[in-house]
Amino acid sequence: MTADNKIELGTDFEPKFDSNGLITAISQDAKTGQILMVAYMNKEALDLTINTGQAVFYSRSRKKLWKKGEESGHYQKVKQILVDCDQDCLILKVEVDQGQCHVGYMSCFYRTLKLGGGKLEFTAEKVYDPKEAYKKNN
Amino acid sequence: MTADNKIELGTDFEPKFDSNGLITAISQDAKTGQILMVAYMNKEALDLTINTGQAVFYSRSRKKLWKKGEESGHYQKVKQILVDCDQDCLILKVEVDQGQCHVGYMSCFYRTLKLGGGKLEFTAEKVYDPKEAYKKNN
Repeated sequence: MTADNKIELGTDFEPKFDSNGLITAISQDAKTGQILMVAYMNKEALDLTINTGQAVFYSRSRKKLWKKGEESGHYQKVKQILVDCDQDCLILKVEVDQGQCHVGYMSCFYRTLKLGGGKLEFTAEKVYDPKEAYKKNN
Repeated sequence: MTADNKIELGTDFEPKFDSNGLITAISQDAKTGQILMVAYMNKEALDLTINTGQAVFYSRSRKKLWKKGEESGHYQKVKQILVDCDQDCLILKVEVDQGQCHVGYMSCFYRTLKLGGGKLEFTAEKVYDPKEAYKKNN
């Protein structure tokens, strides 16, 4: 196998972190298939996720590890991790019991852009109040 | 509204391109919910996608626009575009009639990593021969 082939068709897990040391991770509801959010992991966050079964990301804005749910109580229990062909992106199939977006929606993808462009349209309803969730868990 | 609020809760489409001028785009099968691939768009690719309804990405390795399917024949017809809270990631809900991964699988995510780590396991079967697809369309 060439090096590329080994990455794409081999069984060794060789996650490709970008120049900032991060890999993209998509959380997808294991039951419904809904994409909940997209976040990033450094090696430590990835190792913690693999070893604990709880989603841990790296917050680019806060520049630190971020155990999903540590402030909101909205944890993600990881059921499966999928890796793409060139190993620079992961899918976490997760079990969740509450909305996952910090704004109050089930998914971060609550708005749609029409083909042809124009304004965004809201296509989801809020499922919780972020302020209440924060108060309850802190 | 504050600037953050406007991005997160407004209806203006203000895609946030990264320092390389790219935004992450996830292609998801509109019918099955399967995540097919993750790629990147610069502004031109995004505008073309919005205006033509065909997925166009920017190839980071080839450093040029990449109309998905231009070599393989495996186009993606975009039915809907979803935008996340901070507008730095898009989902394309697409219609496809063939496998989408250049290696020959329906999805780029054809391998699974067990929780606890270890080797990758193949969890999908190839659905086409990439060499034949290339010959047929070139």
